[in-house]
Amino acid sequence: MADDAGIEGLIELMARLPGLGPRSARRAVLMLLKKRGQLMAPLAQAMAQVALTAKDCHICGNIGTADLCPICADPARANGEVCVVEDVADLWALERAGVFRGRYHVLGGLLSALDAVGPEELGIPRLARRVTDEGLREVILALNATVDGQTTAHYIADALAPTGVQLSSLAQGVPVGGELDYLDDGTLGAALRARRRV
Amino acid sequence: MADDAGIEGLIELMARLPGLGPRSARRAVLMLLKKRGQLMAPLAQAMAQVALTAKDCHICGNIGTADLCPICADPARANGEVCVVEDVADLWALERAGVFRGRYHVLGGLLSALDAVGPEELGIPRLARRVTDEGLREVILALNATVDGQTTAHYIADALAPTGVQLSSLAQGVPVGGELDYLDDGTLGAALRARRRV
Ligand SMILES: [Zn+2]
Ligand SMILES: [Zn+2]
Repeated sequence: MADDAGIEGLIELMARLPGLGPRSARRAVLMLLKKRGQLMAPLAQAMAQVALTAKDCHICGNIGTADLCPICADPARANGEVCVVEDVADLWALERAGVFRGRYHVLGGLLSALDAVGPEELGIPRLARRVTDEGLREVILALNATVDGQTTAHYIADALAPTGVQLSSLAQGVPVGGELDYLDDGTLGAALRARRRV
Repeated sequence: MADDAGIEGLIELMARLPGLGPRSARRAVLMLLKKRGQLMAPLAQAMAQVALTAKDCHICGNIGTADLCPICADPARANGEVCVVEDVADLWALERAGVFRGRYHVLGGLLSALDAVGPEELGIPRLARRVTDEGLREVILALNATVDGQTTAHYIADALAPTGVQLSSLAQGVPVGGELDYLDDGTLGAALRARRRV
């Protein structure tokens, strides 16, 4: 206990971050307190700046600090391929692996009758329009190998069938029930290279 | 990879916190990005405020956001007992345990010939003055059960001997080589209650 309202408030907020419990949040804040000028002030400043400027890219749903995300803003990424992912975390994982040179479509979730998430919420009609508007050659479904992931993949395949776009999905390497975000770069790369048509 | 300079910079700063590696820093930033208004903005604001106002208490060395730390500012804590700890983390651990109702003296380190840390850097002369100025009855040495901890405890005992103040140290429950900050509250409480005169 720091016994100081300002410091306790900061610890409480830090403890809400994934991977930090109350104990490690205290440790983190103590370290910040010891490096006030060196780390705490720059971190607060960077966080405030990102909080102020972060926005969802209106084309792909990626998060960036400009109107278009860096990938949609890069003409070199317009290669006719769009990779569909559930979450921004999956997009980041694929970018880290550096194996995909096209653009993305971030669903922001998966179809779920239980949670009443429908195609509109996931931007699936918007994806269909992108196929035509951007003259896409191939849509790669990079969804988790879970039941909801595969249900969503099938729905998207059906929804895009009239456009005639080539559909593929990650194949080799994705373990059953596995989550993309936890895979190593090599596995992700192999899965992308060995993708199969749906 | 977020591919966005502002977001990447934030991830790098977050990764410097203890307990957060590059991977968990990314996860934390992603969560912040998804809760921009709810969590990221308040956290940035709280951190900036604490970075601006945090200072070392000039009496005890605790860190707070006011000139006097909450413990030195609380007249009820002036019970004639001062507990000497190595680090603010140890003070916080004792406060969490809620077993000590006096005040503290934070050394900010331990005597070390290797690192050329001397009594002056640790505020030991200042502690001797506190014994007289505050009319202290007892000084409790709550230092880690390590070689440097015990060397420092003996040095302080010698330095305070002329004042005639009662000296004690944490006894039962502190494992040999153990670090205070890792002990559970029960062990800390038992060690404090069973303290012995030096
Ligand atoms: Zn985009
Ligand atoms: Zn104080």
